[in-house]
Amino acid sequence: MNTDNIRGMLESFREGAISLEQVLGFLKSFAYEDIEFAKIDHHRAVRQGFPEVVFCQGKTIPQVATIMKKLAERSPNVLGTRASKEMFAAVKEAVPEAWYHELARLIVVERSKKEPDADRYILVLSAGTSDMPVAEEAAVTAEIMGHQVQRVYDVGVAGIHRLLAQRETICKANVSIVVAGMEGALASVVGGLVDKPIIAVPTSIGYGANFQGLAALLSMLNSCAAGVAVVNIDNGFGAGRLASIINTMR
Amino acid sequence: MNTDNIRGMLESFREGAISLEQVLGFLKSFAYEDIEFAKIDHHRAVRQGFPEVVFCQGKTIPQVATIMKKLAERSPNVLGTRASKEMFAAVKEAVPEAWYHELARLIVVERSKKEPDADRYILVLSAGTSDMPVAEEAAVTAEIMGHQVQRVYDVGVAGIHRLLAQRETICKANVSIVVAGMEGALASVVGGLVDKPIIAVPTSIGYGANFQGLAALLSMLNSCAAGVAVVNIDNGFGAGRLASIINTMR
Amino acid sequence: MNTDNIRGMLESFREGAISLEQVLGFLKSFAYEDIEFAKIDHHRAVRQGFPEVVFCQGKTIPQVATIMKKLAERSPNVLGTRASKEMFAAVKEAVPEAWYHELARLIVVERSKKEPDADRYILVLSAGTSDMPVAEEAAVTAEIMGHQVQRVYDVGVAGIHRLLAQRETICKANVSIVVAGMEGALASVVGGLVDKPIIAVPTSIGYGANFQGLAALLSMLNSCAAGVAVVNIDNGFGAGRLASIINTMR
Amino acid sequence: MNTDNIRGMLESFREGAISLEQVLGFLKSFAYEDIEFAKIDHHRAVRQGFPEVVFCQGKTIPQVATIMKKLAERSPNVLGTRASKEMFAAVKEAVPEAWYHELARLIVVERSKKEPDADRYILVLSAGTSDMPVAEEAAVTAEIMGHQVQRVYDVGVAGIHRLLAQRETICKANVSIVVAGMEGALASVVGGLVDKPIIAVPTSIGYGANFQGLAALLSMLNSCAAGVAVVNIDNGFGAGRLASIINTMR
Amino acid sequence: MNTDNIRGMLESFREGAISLEQVLGFLKSFAYEDIEFAKIDHHRAVRQGFPEVVFCQGKTIPQVATIMKKLAERSPNVLGTRASKEMFAAVKEAVPEAWYHELARLIVVERSKKEPDADRYILVLSAGTSDMPVAEEAAVTAEIMGHQVQRVYDVGVAGIHRLLAQRETICKANVSIVVAGMEGALASVVGGLVDKPIIAVPTSIGYGANFQGLAALLSMLNSCAAGVAVVNIDNGFGAGRLASIINTMR
Amino acid sequence: MNTDNIRGMLESFREGAISLEQVLGFLKSFAYEDIEFAKIDHHRAVRQGFPEVVFCQGKTIPQVATIMKKLAERSPNVLGTRASKEMFAAVKEAVPEAWYHELARLIVVERSKKEPDADRYILVLSAGTSDMPVAEEAAVTAEIMGHQVQRVYDVGVAGIHRLLAQRETICKANVSIVVAGMEGALASVVGGLVDKPIIAVPTSIGYGANFQGLAALLSMLNSCAAGVAVVNIDNGFGAGRLASIINTMR
Amino acid sequence: MNTDNIRGMLESFREGAISLEQVLGFLKSFAYEDIEFAKIDHHRAVRQGFPEVVFCQGKTIPQVATIMKKLAERSPNVLGTRASKEMFAAVKEAVPEAWYHELARLIVVERSKKEPDADRYILVLSAGTSDMPVAEEAAVTAEIMGHQVQRVYDVGVAGIHRLLAQRETICKANVSIVVAGMEGALASVVGGLVDKPIIAVPTSIGYGANFQGLAALLSMLNSCAAGVAVVNIDNGFGAGRLASIINTMR
Amino acid sequence: MNTDNIRGMLESFREGAISLEQVLGFLKSFAYEDIEFAKIDHHRAVRQGFPEVVFCQGKTIPQVATIMKKLAERSPNVLGTRASKEMFAAVKEAVPEAWYHELARLIVVERSKKEPDADRYILVLSAGTSDMPVAEEAAVTAEIMGHQVQRVYDVGVAGIHRLLAQRETICKANVSIVVAGMEGALASVVGGLVDKPIIAVPTSIGYGANFQGLAALLSMLNSCAAGVAVVNIDNGFGAGRLASIINTMR
Repeated sequence: MNTDNIRGMLESFREGAISLEQVLGFLKSFAYEDIEFAKIDHHRAVRQGFPEVVFCQGKTIPQVATIMKKLAERSPNVLGTRASKEMFAAVKEAVPEAWYHELARLIVVERSKKEPDADRYILVLSAGTSDMPVAEEAAVTAEIMGHQVQRVYDVGVAGIHRLLAQRETICKANVSIVVAGMEGALASVVGGLVDKPIIAVPTSIGYGANFQGLAALLSMLNSCAAGVAVVNIDNGFGAGRLASIINTMR
Repeated sequence: MNTDNIRGMLESFREGAISLEQVLGFLKSFAYEDIEFAKIDHHRAVRQGFPEVVFCQGKTIPQVATIMKKLAERSPNVLGTRASKEMFAAVKEAVPEAWYHELARLIVVERSKKEPDADRYILVLSAGTSDMPVAEEAAVTAEIMGHQVQRVYDVGVAGIHRLLAQRETICKANVSIVVAGMEGALASVVGGLVDKPIIAVPTSIGYGANFQGLAALLSMLNSCAAGVAVVNIDNGFGAGRLASIINTMR
Repeated sequence: MNTDNIRGMLESFREGAISLEQVLGFLKSFAYEDIEFAKIDHHRAVRQGFPEVVFCQGKTIPQVATIMKKLAERSPNVLGTRASKEMFAAVKEAVPEAWYHELARLIVVERSKKEPDADRYILVLSAGTSDMPVAEEAAVTAEIMGHQVQRVYDVGVAGIHRLLAQRETICKANVSIVVAGMEGALASVVGGLVDKPIIAVPTSIGYGANFQGLAALLSMLNSCAAGVAVVNIDNGFGAGRLASIINTMR
Repeated sequence: MNTDNIRGMLESFREGAISLEQVLGFLKSFAYEDIEFAKIDHHRAVRQGFPEVVFCQGKTIPQVATIMKKLAERSPNVLGTRASKEMFAAVKEAVPEAWYHELARLIVVERSKKEPDADRYILVLSAGTSDMPVAEEAAVTAEIMGHQVQRVYDVGVAGIHRLLAQRETICKANVSIVVAGMEGALASVVGGLVDKPIIAVPTSIGYGANFQGLAALLSMLNSCAAGVAVVNIDNGFGAGRLASIINTMR
Repeated sequence: MNTDNIRGMLESFREGAISLEQVLGFLKSFAYEDIEFAKIDHHRAVRQGFPEVVFCQGKTIPQVATIMKKLAERSPNVLGTRASKEMFAAVKEAVPEAWYHELARLIVVERSKKEPDADRYILVLSAGTSDMPVAEEAAVTAEIMGHQVQRVYDVGVAGIHRLLAQRETICKANVSIVVAGMEGALASVVGGLVDKPIIAVPTSIGYGANFQGLAALLSMLNSCAAGVAVVNIDNGFGAGRLASIINTMR
Repeated sequence: MNTDNIRGMLESFREGAISLEQVLGFLKSFAYEDIEFAKIDHHRAVRQGFPEVVFCQGKTIPQVATIMKKLAERSPNVLGTRASKEMFAAVKEAVPEAWYHELARLIVVERSKKEPDADRYILVLSAGTSDMPVAEEAAVTAEIMGHQVQRVYDVGVAGIHRLLAQRETICKANVSIVVAGMEGALASVVGGLVDKPIIAVPTSIGYGANFQGLAALLSMLNSCAAGVAVVNIDNGFGAGRLASIINTMR
Repeated sequence: MNTDNIRGMLESFREGAISLEQVLGFLKSFAYEDIEFAKIDHHRAVRQGFPEVVFCQGKTIPQVATIMKKLAERSPNVLGTRASKEMFAAVKEAVPEAWYHELARLIVVERSKKEPDADRYILVLSAGTSDMPVAEEAAVTAEIMGHQVQRVYDVGVAGIHRLLAQRETICKANVSIVVAGMEGALASVVGGLVDKPIIAVPTSIGYGANFQGLAALLSMLNSCAAGVAVVNIDNGFGAGRLASIINTMR
Repeated sequence: MNTDNIRGMLESFREGAISLEQVLGFLKSFAYEDIEFAKIDHHRAVRQGFPEVVFCQGKTIPQVATIMKKLAERSPNVLGTRASKEMFAAVKEAVPEAWYHELARLIVVERSKKEPDADRYILVLSAGTSDMPVAEEAAVTAEIMGHQVQRVYDVGVAGIHRLLAQRETICKANVSIVVAGMEGALASVVGGLVDKPIIAVPTSIGYGANFQGLAALLSMLNSCAAGVAVVNIDNGFGAGRLASIINTMR
């Protein structure tokens, strides 16, 4: 789709050869902004209900700042994940409304807030307090995407009564995100209690044979409970995003 | 289930405000049938909307037959996964209505069929024809659980036009299951096209460095598209079950 | 074995206070029978309370038969693990009292049976019916070593009420063996309920990403419950042996 | 907890045979304290004989301090593992009796000390001096839980006489903890000498192909000696806790 | 180099038909310079069209400076990969024309520049902005070896329209280098669009289960598109070098 | 590409608004034949110079026969890889000209043969005789795609003189495919001798720590020689296909 | 082979000081026989003291028979490893003196037998009877290469006295080969007893977490005893060959 | 140490034919010094020809200093591996003759130097300059143990002529140590040239898929050349020690 083609098509349009709708229909499926080092997908908000989210890790600070500024020019709400404090400082200058969630390493711009549906809350469970950074990444992601979130933290299976005491909150949730490191068993136990989808997030928390989250990952993939699917290790954002998608279904 | 609630319930009970049966009804939300080698979870149909599904692999033929017979005595619809022909023959004697889906290795008893909601279909995509056994396991699972299923097979990303030609079918699906071996890239491409949940199922199909599905599994877990979650390698059943859960959400 | 002790013993010996046989008896605490292809450790019954157990896998049929015959000449009770039917047939000819536990693949010679202590039973739990061969290997091993065994099978965590319904049996056990494939979460849940040792045995049962037991193994090693230790994948014998050792402690 | 028992208890309660408190006492065997980011399991001391132990790694310093303070309000003895000096400083302010074992990275509060049974000592062996941090974590854990501990360090199998010289100490131990990195062979040799349980702890000490403890872990899991079970890599605490549980058995 | 040829050559030499120098010229096709810690392969420029490239990582700063100085004495163009700023500073003193590409960590000496063939450009695609350091290493390598390079960055498959919009640029490329982390799916999609060779470079960018590039590596090796070959993780240089070799073919 | 758009475009065409060439140009990029279980990509011959190749493994025999028959109706030359004898028998009935290369497990239909360019031969080297099935898969693939192939087998690096004796044949090759199991070192040695591209194919041949080709795969990916890229384990076809693509470049 | 030496040799040759044959003798240190599918390295007997050994696995039966026949035409002693009975039958027809060692899967032709040096024996130890096939492959290999071999089998470390009882035999050996599966600890213990080289051979014998020999392999590589080096899993031949090389040193 | 021998010795002792000291001298072939945190094996110098070598990594600085001081009191030559500069400073105070080899991270005390046998040199080859730290650890280890060492560095197989030019030095070596990272192919090529033992040392040098030395390790274990054995990744000391043992054989 080089610019010559577009020029031609637009001229055909001016000459009446094709209609406005046709041109729009064609163009709209291909909209992005090309800056030197990135192609910003402004159309994603239309296609998937939320603008492109910036994965900050591995980018330079100026790249992060520029991309978030460009997104913030078009979208009221913007999200950057895996962001350092230094990245946030640079974004803050370009987008003053931005704030930073340190534990979850998120940069958030939230200028429009719709009222969440309190009856359909997303539940975020964590097995231990050490899993909180990932759990918060999931929870905040879901919140900025417009959902009600309940948090139930530190309910690992070694004290099953702490978990069972939350049974009502668990069973009423519309979607649950289970965040756990070590052996990740929480996903299976929760999966057996409910008839709603469970998104399991393995974390890299644990002793040596956790192998940076591999143990929890394999554990969750092998869950004997149906209704459990898994996202990447420590990927709280992915879980929050998928939970938001599911929670939007009617 | 916090103690205040229980105290209240017990006092109401002592005062006669609620009956013994009501208390028991609450407490015994735990019911199962204990046969020698298995504890059949009849309560699962109530708790999760479908009776316990029998994972046949690793069980003896008589065990499979007995368990399925017990389930079929209480539930109109029963499902056995990873079943051999020999297992089916034994089940067939005990439950004559049972039939066998050879490619998907499923034993199916389906005596009650509710009309699926045609507008909310589950889409099952496969990257290659070789992935069909797993794709069919997912599709048949969803069908027996009462859902409309569309199949789009052999649309691997190496011929992206075959996939894009199905864009309408893909975008209209309520939930999509993407089944792929080799590099599993199909999940990411589909994930970028839609705003609905994607359940990715890696298969063990491929050349050596697929390592029995590890390549596709890691690929899908690392999907750059949001909205994708992953189940176990070759676990078509798990995907079909989860898709059914999501597709039931209103 | 410090040198002062030996010096003293030798001087006592020169002085005639102790006999040559006593010295030898001490020094040769190392006794075994050397047949062509094996060194049978008859002393193990004294040293560890049960004669050497024969790991049959990888040995030829005549080797298995000869070794078990030699052991049976000196010990009333003998055990062969990972044995095929063909191996059993050969052993049976040499040791007619031998019997075969097909599911557990054990060859058992049990000519002396001491009354087990019914109060201190060993509990064998399995997550699924498919884990029974390994669970039975553990249970029969403990029984032939003189212990009372209780079996609670098919109590995987996806139906937590089935497990909790056995809480009394679980809490009263003196030692528990938890046998589970897939995600192996059962070990953690049981570990959180009791104040007695848990021996966890991962099995190779499951879908692809179980990787022949790796998922359950890592899961159990990473158990968030204290009091859990792990033996090799599918090693029911090892668990049964260790449980017997612990159960003998007074 | 089968329903007949509960029915009986409830009827006795309605009839006044047992009090409301008794029912509650039974039912609320599930008690914990809910602070913002953690659910402190005060009941664990009753259920498992020692209060919840705090895994400090991955928690923030204020979280560690708060949790340990809460535990110290109810229990005389408290333990924090994998703790940094900075964490200790914060805990020290909240719980002045706390002290820090730097090598083992433990925070210890020990206000009640029962006399250990000197005849039933727990033996901690280490293969090398470099394994001492893990060995000390195990030893101190067992000591704070009320057990007599003997240490035999630097007895790796490459100088087997150093180990055999300790044979008496080894054979008299009631439970042994074997801590070893590199090839972890010490567990098998010790396992062959004794008729008591061996808890093996692989460490991450070694050259490249140790792969952060994987070599020692696999080695110990594959031990040809019966009576050996394994805990997580570098998990001295887990070994000390399990040894304490076993050593309490009578 | 069969013996008949050599015999003939030697007899011709004895007969004076060819000179000693000609024989030596043939035999010493093996020339290098031996400095204390390295054997510099000056002949490589003749044998492979570009002088030896210095892999700086793991070398000391003086070693890097000396080797690059020696190479620069004989070759107009020299390349050092995986170089730190400190290494560059030392090289700069010895070879003043050297410059440093910080993002790609390359030290470049380029004193002779031939005009690239603009019609046969090498295309470097990257899936994300975070992959740029590796992509630039590939691009700059190809440029210094005399090739025209086109860059198309941030066209990951989750927004397939961004990629398809570049279809013309992609299809006209003579060789393509696809740089991608996460699930590396870009290689397969591009591989299905073109009839020219694709060199895939996995990067170590991504969440936990990327396992430092393993996910992308396996994904690319399993590409369902023909025409794709893979180089080492993060090895932009290797891809740039191979693309240059292929792009030189006539 | 929904059908409404196509209808509109076609009507514009009938009205003269767009030209025949425009319509064709658009439509042709999307051509495939949809049979029940596969979408046959007839357009691939135009797009990539050779029709779709059938990966037979994992497909049923009737599926293979049908797909190959459909392809053979449109293309003179057709290739099926990883095919069993039974698959061939079924194909042979549908396409009588088909023949079978047993060692390479290829089904070949070759009704049109263009004269290969003898000066630009593809060289296939194998390290050992045991690697021949993979080497032949590569060689026959390149031949059916119209290339001259030279074979140099059994030149593993443990007898380097066997390899060096082939130096002339190696250096004159236009592209080389190096097939090796065990340690796969051949790729690096050949890569150091030539200035042409090397495609390395690891094979699963070897003793235990080859881990089904992993050793050779990692070895080749880490080749210290530039100009080497790697395809999947045992993927002779992929190498032959890529070599054909490169060998066509002018 | 530096150029000065060659220049000198060539000038001596031109001057007649050395003959053409002498030059050729030097240059053609490269001799092999080229049959269709293999390049038989007849020179290896001169270069390395024993003719090329045939790795039979993965070769066809006729290939094995032809290669062994060609070798047997020139060498009195020939060895084929990893050979099946069927391969042997074919070799037997071509080389009637051949015999077959079934346990070790070796085809042996031994027409010349030199008297071994009884004082410098090679010791082959195995941990268990199940390791015998690999141990015998090592032992027979060393014997056919002209060495005295002592076998000490079934001395695994779980019964350390069985091993220590052999201390004299162990300490007198000139080279030791330690064959062990499971945790492979035997290598370390033996390595600590002697001042001679130890060649460790991991075997694939064991329970699940042996992972086909990986556990023993890693264990042996991490041996805390100096003087231990490792060959491939189950590679008895490699160990026997290396022991023979070392045992020849004077 | 069979019982007949012991019986005879004891009877001789009772008869006065041998003294108590002689018996003790035999029995206490087990001598070591017990300091708080280590058991120093002074007997090793007698048993294995060189005193215990201190693996410094993971020990505290005072531990290293104390152990080396104790060893230096009894042995003229002492070696510490994997030592930091800080460790050396502490050792230097206790043992003033100590010196430090920074690149190889060795602490060396060498107060007695025997004249090495120049004819039997140990050859240390390295593939690249980056492998020098490991190569030097091997070389210096062999030197302090009394051997002549030749170094041939930077002869990786990608420039095979650099290696072949050293053929004479290589073929004359009595033992060779091959140090290589990346694909480790050097071991196989050298192994094919010589008839002496090769000790291969994989290093952790390389791009991503080297996986910290795994690629080179597997490559070397799978060497197609006989006569190659492997030590741990980066374990230069182990190779130097084993080479010294072999080079001492007569």
